[in-house]
Amino acid sequence: MFGRIDHIGVAVADLESAIELHTETYGMPLVHRETIAEQGVEAVLLDVGESHVELLKPLSDDTPVGKFLAARGPGLHHVAYAVADVHAALERAREAGLRLIDETPRTGIRGTQVAFLHPKTAGGVLTELVEAH
Amino acid sequence: MFGRIDHIGVAVADLESAIELHTETYGMPLVHRETIAEQGVEAVLLDVGESHVELLKPLSDDTPVGKFLAARGPGLHHVAYAVADVHAALERAREAGLRLIDETPRTGIRGTQVAFLHPKTAGGVLTELVEAH
Repeated sequence: MFGRIDHIGVAVADLESAIELHTETYGMPLVHRETIAEQGVEAVLLDVGESHVELLKPLSDDTPVGKFLAARGPGLHHVAYAVADVHAALERAREAGLRLIDETPRTGIRGTQVAFLHPKTAGGVLTELVEAH
Repeated sequence: MFGRIDHIGVAVADLESAIELHTETYGMPLVHRETIAEQGVEAVLLDVGESHVELLKPLSDDTPVGKFLAARGPGLHHVAYAVADVHAALERAREAGLRLIDETPRTGIRGTQVAFLHPKTAGGVLTELVEAH
């Protein structure tokens, strides 16, 4: 069902220093920057192989990533897998008895169609399905 | 410095049900299983694109992954990036002022040479450098 790791999502409090770490020390090119109001984040994508690191800075404390930061501090937030058909993948997850956060796909970063699986039945991992557009 | 995501490490309490989730629902082939006594884990690798998911079950509560599970529950534990030369990458990290967990590389899963960077100066992310053998 999953073709590759599309990205890992990292919650950050200080976006500029996280960008500096990933670009200057780790050598990852910054390829995209977008404010996703619906998810309450400013997001930055960095290239690494066939995947990305997605840095996520909350737009306010009262957002999912803002609450994550307050509870756990900066760090790994989710993993996203590339799928060919997000509707089909979501249906397969539902049939397997997984708990869904998104009952239907919605628009994610760079116009992708995405859906999140709840960590409760995904091994404790907030898991995103991403269909490239 | 980093060529690709080598793997994401996921701490699990129930290894068999995590394997079932990743193989049967996610469709990832199980490619390796190893007890790494030095790290206090039983580890399972699953293929996804050019990367792996590494499931980590602690051998006892008194191990780093055992303590992680007790404090945070199952979930994302670390990310590992592939490097061409782990000694050179570790030296570059040191020169950049990053805090190191391993001052010199050690043997990781499948005979790889690995070194961990401390989350404190790595954006809150426990970060592993992996040189394939």
